[in-house]
Amino acid sequence: MEVSVDNHLYMLQNDVVGGALSDSSSDEEEDAIIEELVKGNTEVESLIFDPNDEGTSDQWIKRNASLVRLTGKHPFNSEPPVARLMEHGFITPVPLHYVRNHGPVPQARWNDWVVEVTGQITQPTCFTMDELARDFPSREFPATVVCAGNRRKELNMVKQSTGFHWGAAAISTSVWRGVPLWSVLKRCGIYSRSERALHVCFEGAEDLPGGKYGTSIVREVALDRSRDIILAYMQNGERLSPDHGFPVRMIIPGCVGGCMVKWLKRIIVTTKESESYYHYKENRVLPSHVDVELANAEGWWYKPEYIITELNVNSVITTPCHDEILLINHWTTKMPYVLKGYAYSGGGRKVTRVEVTLDDGENWKVCTVDSAEKPNKYGKYWCWCFWSLEVEVLDLLGTKEIAVRAWDKALNTQPEKLTWNVMGMMNNCWFRVKTNMCKLNKDKIGIMFKHPTQPGPQSGGWMEKEKHLEKYSEWNQIMNESVSSIFWKTYSTSEVRKHNHVDSAWIIVHGHVYDCTHFLNDHPGGRESILVNAATDCTVVFEAIHSGKATEILEQYRIGELITTATDTTI
Amino acid sequence: MEVSVDNHLYMLQNDVVGGALSDSSSDEEEDAIIEELVKGNTEVESLIFDPNDEGTSDQWIKRNASLVRLTGKHPFNSEPPVARLMEHGFITPVPLHYVRNHGPVPQARWNDWVVEVTGQITQPTCFTMDELARDFPSREFPATVVCAGNRRKELNMVKQSTGFHWGAAAISTSVWRGVPLWSVLKRCGIYSRSERALHVCFEGAEDLPGGKYGTSIVREVALDRSRDIILAYMQNGERLSPDHGFPVRMIIPGCVGGCMVKWLKRIIVTTKESESYYHYKENRVLPSHVDVELANAEGWWYKPEYIITELNVNSVITTPCHDEILLINHWTTKMPYVLKGYAYSGGGRKVTRVEVTLDDGENWKVCTVDSAEKPNKYGKYWCWCFWSLEVEVLDLLGTKEIAVRAWDKALNTQPEKLTWNVMGMMNNCWFRVKTNMCKLNKDKIGIMFKHPTQPGPQSGGWMEKEKHLEKYSEWNQIMNESVSSIFWKTYSTSEVRKHNHVDSAWIIVHGHVYDCTHFLNDHPGGRESILVNAATDCTVVFEAIHSGKATEILEQYRIGELITTATDTTI
Repeated sequence: MEVSVDNHLYMLQNDVVGGALSDSSSDEEEDAIIEELVKGNTEVESLIFDPNDEGTSDQWIKRNASLVRLTGKHPFNSEPPVARLMEHGFITPVPLHYVRNHGPVPQARWNDWVVEVTGQITQPTCFTMDELARDFPSREFPATVVCAGNRRKELNMVKQSTGFHWGAAAISTSVWRGVPLWSVLKRCGIYSRSERALHVCFEGAEDLPGGKYGTSIVREVALDRSRDIILAYMQNGERLSPDHGFPVRMIIPGCVGGCMVKWLKRIIVTTKESESYYHYKENRVLPSHVDVELANAEGWWYKPEYIITELNVNSVITTPCHDEILLINHWTTKMPYVLKGYAYSGGGRKVTRVEVTLDDGENWKVCTVDSAEKPNKYGKYWCWCFWSLEVEVLDLLGTKEIAVRAWDKALNTQPEKLTWNVMGMMNNCWFRVKTNMCKLNKDKIGIMFKHPTQPGPQSGGWMEKEKHLEKYSEWNQIMNESVSSIFWKTYSTSEVRKHNHVDSAWIIVHGHVYDCTHFLNDHPGGRESILVNAATDCTVVFEAIHSGKATEILEQYRIGELITTATDTTI
Repeated sequence: MEVSVDNHLYMLQNDVVGGALSDSSSDEEEDAIIEELVKGNTEVESLIFDPNDEGTSDQWIKRNASLVRLTGKHPFNSEPPVARLMEHGFITPVPLHYVRNHGPVPQARWNDWVVEVTGQITQPTCFTMDELARDFPSREFPATVVCAGNRRKELNMVKQSTGFHWGAAAISTSVWRGVPLWSVLKRCGIYSRSERALHVCFEGAEDLPGGKYGTSIVREVALDRSRDIILAYMQNGERLSPDHGFPVRMIIPGCVGGCMVKWLKRIIVTTKESESYYHYKENRVLPSHVDVELANAEGWWYKPEYIITELNVNSVITTPCHDEILLINHWTTKMPYVLKGYAYSGGGRKVTRVEVTLDDGENWKVCTVDSAEKPNKYGKYWCWCFWSLEVEVLDLLGTKEIAVRAWDKALNTQPEKLTWNVMGMMNNCWFRVKTNMCKLNKDKIGIMFKHPTQPGPQSGGWMEKEKHLEKYSEWNQIMNESVSSIFWKTYSTSEVRKHNHVDSAWIIVHGHVYDCTHFLNDHPGGRESILVNAATDCTVVFEAIHSGKATEILEQYRIGELITTATDTTI
């Protein structure tokens, strides 16, 4: 099923029935979106076989080399450099779209794939991809996908959550095309509520440590046409890429990315919500005082009020970027400086206002907001918008910090301070960029801007300074407790190097040697993410991803110390 | 059309078609709601002809004497004492329901009233009340109605907005029964979008200084069944009362009270949104720096992003109440104290968490939340909920302040600090109750609790201290400017007392005499609200309602000074 790009001109936010247009309105805005879309994808952002994927089960996938890897070699979780993301504007080229994978990417073929629809319906059916693409009316429209962990690293700087270090670029926007969920459910004869059809569950194809990735929504939400929920099989005018769910995934606009099951295999209409491990153990925001132990002990994972679905209102400063230097001289102080960034909200609620403060919230300046999107006919908005504000360089000289907050249609706004939660989700406190005067050489001075964090293992960011000191002392504490009165065995790197397989998997962290063989099947991130690092020093990756709790677990597998010799530097 | 209370037992959140129940599920929760409803209304909260209404055009209406009047004698705007509101729990007796009237209450008769449906529809129709109640399926369910100005007085303590002093009780919950709006629009053959049916406007019966009160929503929202929008003609099992829109009003759950037009006369399907003065000049939240002059000069009233419809998330502490004293002794310090309050959000989003801090946000305790309501089948919640938290008295002794914040389903929460806006709308910052140690007599000490404000002209509240000083100096400044080098004429109270009619309307404010005759028709609150105060000292009422701008206008009508004599004290 191929669709020429020309067709899209009239398809954005329109119903397409059997190839004919039910409501063909075209205008300049849509032209603009399409133009961006056409020049997007691989023409502007190339794909290569990344050496980082060598030896992993994803080595068959081409990826964009600029993506920042957040969980080491495997599984693949990454976000684009935020400046590069912004450069492309409203529509993100597919190669640059952030990726959240729980395990190996399923190797799918269009012609073999079927989506099974089953459960509380009159006609259980398996649909081939051709049937989905050919036999149903389709919808095509732009929608922003955001990971609930977007901006998590800020929380992790306060205290490590169970999640890895998302920066502020766990967000991307595509034009998605697919089959409305309501039409699939109607065709299969979904039962009524009184016939106990209460939930619609989605299940992916991956085999993960916790079973299949899955989640669910309630029946009436699934059938609600105003929500534009689709089984998407095209992204920016092309079939899906492997990392984004080829051949078919859920798109549930206005909700967290975690709801939008990729590599969709089954839709099950049930009396109960999804029983997937991931439905309960991901996509939760628990109160601040709840850590993993308390959550397990008191059953917090299963309390229904803490599941997250709709996104909250959020905004980020992207210009100035991190470590940008603004030269201060006669010339620049006469020029305005334009602050920029993005904003979004959930549930179709439009971002109605974005404001910047240069005095810690005493006064707020109203920004210009550029929303490239038209609402759907129910008045709902599914995409990010971009904000900008012209300020005087002299004003920047006079401030220690630039902060931004957005407001949405329901007059909700971002909180001033962050609220830590154990999974590190939904952080939407004011985004703060600090300014520091710096001397460039004898004659030149400038303002250097500092973002709160840099994604993944990258260092930098004004929140990190304190954190590094803390982490060091935390690590030392754990070490001291476990070291006490034991003399460890020592290993050479060449000895360690032999233990790179499933029957003996050793790793090095902070100069200590660990035998993780018996932990392979218990590792929450899957065995493969240990195996691809086996026999190597993975200190940086380990620290970037793991909590203090994980460090404690790791200590149980310590077998000795590394000794390095002059000839032993290749590890 | 009479409905016995027994029937309601099965009607809550159910469709009722031609008197038969389409889906008759009854359970204990519904029983509980009905029980409260039955004992509600006039049995527990009496109605009288209030002396305050004498001489106003509302003098035919019986009201509850405990309501706090916020705009003097007329028009009637009032809220219940918050402790009394809480006493009644989930369902508010009608006599205690807060009231927002723009002018005189229309004197309506059930048998004479018609609702006209017109505009972009195939069958323009005038429905009698009997037709509405008899010929359509009806819906009955509890819904909380909240004024967008709830908690406005806190904003007014920072700077006077254009609005009067709502406390924290501009909120009430009733069981509403009515005809779904979608069914009325379908019956009248509403055109499609392509036939230019884009908005649905509602118009009330009042003749106000700005014309008819009216507002509008977009077509698809009006037709959206998940929203439970009804033309309501019963409240808590009885026909509507005059103050709440008899014989019929709009109920648009999850939205601000200002959307829910009372004394509904016309529904007009249009190509443009409502053109009512009140649609633009009310129900707006403008950025903080925008005052009335700037809003007029730069057209801020007409910028679409600033209209408000959905409520934001909010919560309030009701126990301890204002000026409550908690005795501190051997006995009480061993007892727990239970903090209580209410919370709500908009758009059907459930309140998922309420938290209290005793250390200004450093730590938050999770409260117990009691939600008496079942969601509609789309998972939406339309009612307030009640929260409670047991704390140690010793913890209260150790804190200066108790603050509360709520979170909703979309993970939005309340901001820490208030954001002033010119109309004083949608204030939802943390609600803070201060604690002060006080000595009761030689042996007894206690903690005295202070709420931020007290509603209307009532004094008290920790925010007021500073404000009083400011107001005094503001008033003096205006006085000094106008007084300069003029010697005013003096009047006795018996002289003033003659000027109590439309041809000569004088008032006394702060000992000055004003002739407002020529301002009667220009008064934004209507001529009647001046006339009912004519010939009296209305200092308290004037100050409670008006901004500095109004004080300046008033000064233009000053004609002299009041002289009081010993025999002249009856005014």
